[in-house]
Amino acid sequence: MKTETTIQGLTASLATARSNKKMIGFVPTMGNLHEGHLTLVRAAKKICDVVVVSIFVNPIQFGAGEDFDNYPRTLEQDSRLLADVGCDIIFAPSVEQMYGTQPRLTNISVGQITDDLCGKSRPGHFDGVAVVVTKLFNMVQPDYAFFGQKDYQQLAVIRQLVQDLNMPLEVIGVPIVRAEDGLALSSRNGYLSQEQREIAPKIYQLLKKAEQQLHDGQVLEQVLANISTELTQAGFVVDYVEARQTNLQPITQFDQDLVLFVAAKLGTTRLIDNLQVNFKT
Amino acid sequence: MKTETTIQGLTASLATARSNKKMIGFVPTMGNLHEGHLTLVRAAKKICDVVVVSIFVNPIQFGAGEDFDNYPRTLEQDSRLLADVGCDIIFAPSVEQMYGTQPRLTNISVGQITDDLCGKSRPGHFDGVAVVVTKLFNMVQPDYAFFGQKDYQQLAVIRQLVQDLNMPLEVIGVPIVRAEDGLALSSRNGYLSQEQREIAPKIYQLLKKAEQQLHDGQVLEQVLANISTELTQAGFVVDYVEARQTNLQPITQFDQDLVLFVAAKLGTTRLIDNLQVNFKT
Repeated sequence: MKTETTIQGLTASLATARSNKKMIGFVPTMGNLHEGHLTLVRAAKKICDVVVVSIFVNPIQFGAGEDFDNYPRTLEQDSRLLADVGCDIIFAPSVEQMYGTQPRLTNISVGQITDDLCGKSRPGHFDGVAVVVTKLFNMVQPDYAFFGQKDYQQLAVIRQLVQDLNMPLEVIGVPIVRAEDGLALSSRNGYLSQEQREIAPKIYQLLKKAEQQLHDGQVLEQVLANISTELTQAGFVVDYVEARQTNLQPITQFDQDLVLFVAAKLGTTRLIDNLQVNFKT
Repeated sequence: MKTETTIQGLTASLATARSNKKMIGFVPTMGNLHEGHLTLVRAAKKICDVVVVSIFVNPIQFGAGEDFDNYPRTLEQDSRLLADVGCDIIFAPSVEQMYGTQPRLTNISVGQITDDLCGKSRPGHFDGVAVVVTKLFNMVQPDYAFFGQKDYQQLAVIRQLVQDLNMPLEVIGVPIVRAEDGLALSSRNGYLSQEQREIAPKIYQLLKKAEQQLHDGQVLEQVLANISTELTQAGFVVDYVEARQTNLQPITQFDQDLVLFVAAKLGTTRLIDNLQVNFKT
């Protein structure tokens, strides 16, 4: 496994693979890796010859007052984990390497599907994601790129970006990896106190309960309101509890497959989760 | 020479070149080709193994009331001209092939350098250019892309786009090709009546006169005002007469290399031109 910190080094490391027409798989991350990330790398290893994992805490996708400065940077530990799962190249550039010294004038916006859910609470977040992912795609030029379904809206944004701009690669979404108690794995879970960590699985429990209630025929609005109420009772500050079609469009029919979305804060830590509920069997 | 009208066909046509590591050159056009375009193709032939010319009148870079519907479409004539200069592949997609049937949600904006000059008179124009050029780059995946300096601001926008998003290609700017009387070649010159066509070279004559006046030490503001006055007297409706540094930033010093820009209408036809004035020898 090689670690590259410059675009030039990355390009050089990939030159042989590219000229031998190896399938290149790419897993963009912000580091502080957990089993969720490693599952993405394993998925990439299955169908690609060479797997590149980027580790870059991207300043432009953090809003004012968000946790950019405190976001955990654990490159050594990440490197050991990545070596174990067979990652071929780590790309860990500095902010200057990624964004250069000249001002960036170009912005990319994916509209409509970023208007609500996390897009509403985090203005500019998905523009920052679209820009950094486009840059990374242009650097790595992968055949396949792997993203977790925990960041469901982000995955939808990237699929749309790739489709709208005809990017020459395929996006693969990989199911959420959960702790034994159901909590969706996230680097931000590390911010939780022991007490908060014990409360956090409530999100998934309520999503599963809601799924059952919907299958039992309960009204969607009521089911969503229940989640919100119970989260608040458990000590969360709810950002949103929403349901959308799987393509993030509003629900239009009674029995559509849908995705339930939750974002809620425990203390200063913002957690998100989602669960797809299928009606058509 | 092959002509491809679908992305799939284009990809297939380029597959051998790509796997044999041939240098791919790309000349994006809106068709109705003239000697300016052919000069781009010749420049591409010089340094590339395979040259792709796209012919696509891009709806999203035309504003309301602009000439999208009337823009000349002359594919047969263009094909003959391109065959003569050794073009390898014409890519002439339909609007549906380029933009699909699903709504496009992604936009690309290059800020600041599009705030004035043509950006001011044509809101959204450079977003439309950025989007279509990005899509075409992703389809063709060229090593080099060639653009004319007549559309100086467009060239600057594309250079910025490529730099900001780390697109894996090099942008080559090619000098303006002029008619014998100095008029910068443009497909839109075909809209001019015979009488207008005789007046049109005035733009270049005034730019050359201004260059001389600047070298003679005349004050920039006065020189620009003279161009504007004389164009109006000749029957033009002036959109702008401006000077910028070569990177499109405002002039900050007396003796900087600069570019003079003119946009003016003769009847309903909008003409643009520019001239670089060098002080440092």
